[in-house]
Amino acid sequence: MESMNFLKDGFGYEDLRALPPESLKSLAAEVRRLIVDVVRENGGHLGSSLGSVELCIALLRKFDPLEDRIVFDVGHQVYPYKILSDRADRFRTLRALDGVSGFPRRAESPCDHFDTGHSSTSISAGLGYAKARDLLEQSHHVVVVIGDAALINGLAFEALNHIKETKTRLIIVLNDNKHSISPRVGGFATMLARLSASTSYNKIKSAIKECCRVLPKGEALEKSLENIYDQIKALVKPQNIFDELDINYWGPFDGHNIEETEMIFQLAKGYDRPVLLHFSTVKGKGLPEAEADPTKYHQMAPRAEREAAQQALAKIRTWSDAASGVTEELAQADNRIVCLTAAMATGVKLENFRNLFPHRFFDVGIAESHMLTLAGGMAAGGLRPWVFIYSTFLQRAMDQLTHDVALQNLPVVLMVDRAGLVGSDGETHQGLLDVSWTRAIPNLEVYAPADENSLRQMMTYASQRRGPTVIRYPRGSLPIRNNLSNGRDSLGSVTIREGEEWALIGHGVTVHILLEAHERANAAGLPAPAVIDLRRLKPLDTDFLDEILKRYPTVVTAEENYLNGGIGEALASRILELGTSTCLRRLGVPDRFIHHATIAQQREFCDLTVEGVLKCGLGRLGLKAHTA
Amino acid sequence: MESMNFLKDGFGYEDLRALPPESLKSLAAEVRRLIVDVVRENGGHLGSSLGSVELCIALLRKFDPLEDRIVFDVGHQVYPYKILSDRADRFRTLRALDGVSGFPRRAESPCDHFDTGHSSTSISAGLGYAKARDLLEQSHHVVVVIGDAALINGLAFEALNHIKETKTRLIIVLNDNKHSISPRVGGFATMLARLSASTSYNKIKSAIKECCRVLPKGEALEKSLENIYDQIKALVKPQNIFDELDINYWGPFDGHNIEETEMIFQLAKGYDRPVLLHFSTVKGKGLPEAEADPTKYHQMAPRAEREAAQQALAKIRTWSDAASGVTEELAQADNRIVCLTAAMATGVKLENFRNLFPHRFFDVGIAESHMLTLAGGMAAGGLRPWVFIYSTFLQRAMDQLTHDVALQNLPVVLMVDRAGLVGSDGETHQGLLDVSWTRAIPNLEVYAPADENSLRQMMTYASQRRGPTVIRYPRGSLPIRNNLSNGRDSLGSVTIREGEEWALIGHGVTVHILLEAHERANAAGLPAPAVIDLRRLKPLDTDFLDEILKRYPTVVTAEENYLNGGIGEALASRILELGTSTCLRRLGVPDRFIHHATIAQQREFCDLTVEGVLKCGLGRLGLKAHTA
Repeated sequence: MESMNFLKDGFGYEDLRALPPESLKSLAAEVRRLIVDVVRENGGHLGSSLGSVELCIALLRKFDPLEDRIVFDVGHQVYPYKILSDRADRFRTLRALDGVSGFPRRAESPCDHFDTGHSSTSISAGLGYAKARDLLEQSHHVVVVIGDAALINGLAFEALNHIKETKTRLIIVLNDNKHSISPRVGGFATMLARLSASTSYNKIKSAIKECCRVLPKGEALEKSLENIYDQIKALVKPQNIFDELDINYWGPFDGHNIEETEMIFQLAKGYDRPVLLHFSTVKGKGLPEAEADPTKYHQMAPRAEREAAQQALAKIRTWSDAASGVTEELAQADNRIVCLTAAMATGVKLENFRNLFPHRFFDVGIAESHMLTLAGGMAAGGLRPWVFIYSTFLQRAMDQLTHDVALQNLPVVLMVDRAGLVGSDGETHQGLLDVSWTRAIPNLEVYAPADENSLRQMMTYASQRRGPTVIRYPRGSLPIRNNLSNGRDSLGSVTIREGEEWALIGHGVTVHILLEAHERANAAGLPAPAVIDLRRLKPLDTDFLDEILKRYPTVVTAEENYLNGGIGEALASRILELGTSTCLRRLGVPDRFIHHATIAQQREFCDLTVEGVLKCGLGRLGLKAHTA
Repeated sequence: MESMNFLKDGFGYEDLRALPPESLKSLAAEVRRLIVDVVRENGGHLGSSLGSVELCIALLRKFDPLEDRIVFDVGHQVYPYKILSDRADRFRTLRALDGVSGFPRRAESPCDHFDTGHSSTSISAGLGYAKARDLLEQSHHVVVVIGDAALINGLAFEALNHIKETKTRLIIVLNDNKHSISPRVGGFATMLARLSASTSYNKIKSAIKECCRVLPKGEALEKSLENIYDQIKALVKPQNIFDELDINYWGPFDGHNIEETEMIFQLAKGYDRPVLLHFSTVKGKGLPEAEADPTKYHQMAPRAEREAAQQALAKIRTWSDAASGVTEELAQADNRIVCLTAAMATGVKLENFRNLFPHRFFDVGIAESHMLTLAGGMAAGGLRPWVFIYSTFLQRAMDQLTHDVALQNLPVVLMVDRAGLVGSDGETHQGLLDVSWTRAIPNLEVYAPADENSLRQMMTYASQRRGPTVIRYPRGSLPIRNNLSNGRDSLGSVTIREGEEWALIGHGVTVHILLEAHERANAAGLPAPAVIDLRRLKPLDTDFLDEILKRYPTVVTAEENYLNGGIGEALASRILELGTSTCLRRLGVPDRFIHHATIAQQREFCDLTVEGVLKCGLGRLGLKAHTA
């Protein structure tokens, strides 16, 4: 493997522009090597970024990343852009605390123009930028880079539908790698494939290329472009959704051909209307194993995590493994059970379920809102739908959960994966709102298991409940202790360690922090706290909790959710209803977005640690000793 | 005007089927008369329901409302269906407490198959019903009735995109009245218009009609239908979005021609794939003034409200009037201010702003998610976007508010109209979640004015803030007292009545209930409570509130929001942080959906009344007197 030739000593987009065209191929290879190296070490999104190297090179040679507004959708494909704009030097800090984010971030670089992480926001954001430019009488370009999978989300469609009304110019770069996170789904995908095979568009391509060769300057340029437009119109009748929506469609082009791509960008810059440029690319390009299995290489875990998994004697099982395993068992016994995912079959580990029950498995693509309403319809029709969704993406379907599931008290089970702190994916992917938000919705019951046994109990209960149930569980591996309550199968709250003077109340992963705090206090000869596993977050198990609140004068709550609207607040209200003189201290996530770092670092930041628990609990006890 | 001929003595869908075709025209006229009568009295959605009379007649004659699953989108057009299925007798109770709901409700009738109120859910729900039918090996039909405006929402698009994958049969009835709540917007609308004018589809229509005349039975029927399908395919190349998505498109047909409509339904019943039937109708059909001004006659206020407005000497001003008035003033002074609405220009009173600043006004259609991300892009580009949205519809854009606005701390102002209890529109339209949900999002500041002066202060502040601001205000007219705090222009909490022993803390409309409670207590010689107007809900004004919590041993909070996650919980947490021995009693909306009724009845149900406040506050005081 060659060493770095270009990407050293502060190489930036100005250097990129100065490079002769014949160097670009080796630059692209070098960018790919850097990406593979860094992602192997730090983890991250590999396939899409490998596929967008040439597109990013052409973008940065034809547009000005400071003046023009380049908006990347999701950000899975943004690494080459980051490297080539102004972050080659620090790219090895990818996804680490204080390092380069895995997603575009305005706070990180003036070349990033919109923060993303969730899919399909870019056309809306780009339209906003374009209207701002028009109204403020500026003249720069706005370029949106979006993948094919993101296009099928309703948000992107709403923006596409609105473009015509806005009467502005906007360049949409469709990076079509025929593959989203999982293989893409739906009628739209078929349409894109049909477009790619269309011969009439090859004729347009030739026309455009010919025109570029003889491109005049100034006023003549505009006239010439107008002619091309007419030629294009004459060549094909409207025959795709973009034309139907009055968006000019050019393509498809080879997104790995830098020269052609630059030419198209040049042409689009001179064009005075919204235009969609369709580029075909290969996901995982340049890394044979990733080209062969793009789903597997979409995202990679950090080396440390992968090695730990390999070294473990038994295969490490994750929460997602356990959840899907129980689902399979329940589905064997009840053929009304169906599973739904929004392009996350791999992430939530539903692949085996899909194989076992292909007709009872639904991947709707990146369409969380539709997924929830679909589940509502299925439940109304007599099925028992299980929706598997990351906490952060549930934010996309809160109205559908409320209006189409909870309102009718339909028996939909929501398996909310990646709830709580998520580590290196950072602020856009944190699962910190689901407790506060779901807790306010009538008819929902909300659970959080702290171990595998509880998970199984809750799922079994949910499978029979005549109403909607939410079960939230975290990212990562199951805890070693898988039966905290010694087989007591209460769905309500349980005491898992007796204690004196103070009690620790948590749910989900925090219960394990509380257990360690109990042991640490014990070992240090301090008053050991009782440890309570809440299990059911809504409705609160007041029968049980009232006794705890009456018995213990000091209570510490701990949760991986925002403090605002969290369970700590619910308990505070209960204490005041009871009129006990309990001292309450609430640990949880403070009122700010939590940046990328390891989960341990993020917990540290939130004081959600053994030390944090001991400090605030014992502080209370000390305080109490003083005043007594 | 003739009296009722058909709609008496329990007239139902079976009677409807028995009617000879020549009676249907007079039946339709009678249904229209009933709708106009009842809506003039009770208020409700007039225009869409008048336009769907013939469609509903044909639906109920060709499908079985118990066996088949007919799902109405939104429900604006559902009145004729309600009257003709099984609710003619009780239709005069429309929108009243315990009466017929203004929207489809499963709990109301076995003929209603999915609860709606928010737009664009029907295709997803219908797909869910269809898959449930397939997996449970049933054979009924699933029919979705959706308006043209609802089709542009992302949720509907996600469902359309998914149809192909589901390999099921589904009948989508597109009721195209070329007009949503406001005139529809976007490229999609243009496409529908183009379709309506297409001659090739007239050819299909003839082919289908011809075929219906000679329709054979049994196996031959299927074969015959197959032939028609091929004929259709041959007649036109794919040229609309539905064909692109592999959904069979038939149309456009005249939705006021019952015979033709029944024929098309008959044909669709025999068809084994998803089919979209495009019917052209006239919004407000049969009522000349409604046909002439469909926006005005989309919805009508109850007679009592209209008469009160007419009798008032001065024109009654609503919160929406005040909010849009201040926006106009601010926009005169700052040309970066733009206004956005999702098809609600009339409801939120932005019509005058649109006239004054046509280039700074954006109606995105029913596309709340896009609206929020668009606003984020506009703000990033240097504008100051003001988003006007009903609280209930903000539920559709919570992720966009979090991920595309709050995360980047962008200066977007959210004017949340219809926050709190909304009266006769009922459970789908209540604005009871916004406080709990927005309070959990970092970077947001959240305000609730209790009078016009506060509203103006908050809006002026928001117009200058470097970050996102939420201002929630209720449905209906401004309070008579428009300067509760005597000109003190604190944005934080203020005492508006001094008191002894107990304090009442509220925000928004509840402040006026608390004021009345104060006066009532005073008049009765009881200890009068202090009254606090919270104004800022997030972050809490702890400097001020801490003093109140220390001074008053009994505190009652009151809010038009769910108790779960509400401000009462936030104050409970603060009390425990301070360690005061305050008795807290929280009034608010209990953990259930609140049905249609008048706002006064809904407040009664929630104890959000003067009596409710006095009872729980004085109960506390009594208790205190006992124990002291």
